[in-house]
Amino acid sequence: MTIGTVFLVGAGPGDPDLITRKGLRLLREADVVMYDRLIPRQLLDETRSDAELINAGKAPTRHRLSQAAINALIIDRALAGLDVLRLKGGDPFVFGRGGEEALACHRLGIPFEVVPGVSSAISVPAYAGIPLTQRHISSAFTVITGHEIGQGLNYAALARLGGTIVILMGVKQLPNITDKLLLSGMSADTPTAVIEWGATARQRTVTGTLDDIAAVARENGIRPPAITVVGEVVRLRDEGIAWYDLLPQLAGLA
Amino acid sequence: MTIGTVFLVGAGPGDPDLITRKGLRLLREADVVMYDRLIPRQLLDETRSDAELINAGKAPTRHRLSQAAINALIIDRALAGLDVLRLKGGDPFVFGRGGEEALACHRLGIPFEVVPGVSSAISVPAYAGIPLTQRHISSAFTVITGHEIGQGLNYAALARLGGTIVILMGVKQLPNITDKLLLSGMSADTPTAVIEWGATARQRTVTGTLDDIAAVARENGIRPPAITVVGEVVRLRDEGIAWYDLLPQLAGLA
Repeated sequence: MTIGTVFLVGAGPGDPDLITRKGLRLLREADVVMYDRLIPRQLLDETRSDAELINAGKAPTRHRLSQAAINALIIDRALAGLDVLRLKGGDPFVFGRGGEEALACHRLGIPFEVVPGVSSAISVPAYAGIPLTQRHISSAFTVITGHEIGQGLNYAALARLGGTIVILMGVKQLPNITDKLLLSGMSADTPTAVIEWGATARQRTVTGTLDDIAAVARENGIRPPAITVVGEVVRLRDEGIAWYDLLPQLAGLA
Repeated sequence: MTIGTVFLVGAGPGDPDLITRKGLRLLREADVVMYDRLIPRQLLDETRSDAELINAGKAPTRHRLSQAAINALIIDRALAGLDVLRLKGGDPFVFGRGGEEALACHRLGIPFEVVPGVSSAISVPAYAGIPLTQRHISSAFTVITGHEIGQGLNYAALARLGGTIVILMGVKQLPNITDKLLLSGMSADTPTAVIEWGATARQRTVTGTLDDIAAVARENGIRPPAITVVGEVVRLRDEGIAWYDLLPQLAGLA
């Protein structure tokens, strides 16, 4: 029997229209689709009616599957000759553990392909009207995750770097992270935004400064999933780039 | 007459299969398509037969259009009632000047939408088998551009930050950038890769260390467009993630 192929596919951010042409084609063909919690659920309507769908975010016991269990399932189905599509929010290689799944396949000789996706780190700020770079304002950006705070990251260096900072999944850690940046000398009035449920109809953005954004987020009841942007580019949102909030189809929402 | 809408669309990296579903649909509908130099040219086959195609990378005089001239053309066509699709390599808000074009539209009351794309900064390393983040190896990444070296970026901080560094369009500046990082104390043996023509059939990757990569790139005749990745994640390429180089359809190339 032929071994199946594993496709590590980025679904993009909340908007199901941002999946790539290749990702969509593979999604419609796959024998098995194993998906993460934060993918746009409408994408599952694209799968074959006889495809096996596995929610990696929720095991039968309602606990999330461990990475080892996910790897084992992928390998089991591929060795059974099935093509497996591993669907991940955003991009599979940006905090998506795609590298670990790729290595697991490689070690067993299972062919795999990576299908990059539109990263939430870039596109969610874009949907909030914030370009991560802009001439004369920011010529670099750094992406970190609130989940892995402190893992070898030098906050004193981050505070002095001089570009835009994007914090993924950092709602709970937001006071810690902003405190670290402030203690490292980053300016208290650095414009900062938090975007909740980015690139979905529920998108909500709050803005403030580095020293008050944690309070602003708390007072506004911001909950995960949310992405934080720190830097002068945040001002561009209010200078006219907040296009998504102004779309007619969203005008009725609030 | 109704004013047209401007769509700032990311084409993704070299592989034309990585355009988003929304970007492709809009490309097939647009009255005017103004495209940058580094988009996958196959995408232009998707435009309407009567669409006006404008190469922003080459004016009739073979000089590149200035940003002011690009903005003026976009505005002219939109005010004439035409829907304009501005097609950019990678993502429009990552060194794509999308923010400037969005502001230009806003100031004249021209409606616009941003359609994020698969960023070359993330996907080209992925095609070379390099995830920008990996548990226990790198929990952050910084993207800079060789074109705007020194614009407010603190290299001493970058050298000490502790995540992966991605340098876009830095072939010419590579010796300068690596020297700055080395002088700032970054380890000389930090694994480093340069990827030329990423995510295309011409993709070529050379690897080395921070202190020899500029020489390696020169000796191998690496030319733009190329992307450099600095950090321990580069090792993962040789540990088995270099999937794209192993695809059957590329095996005949060298």
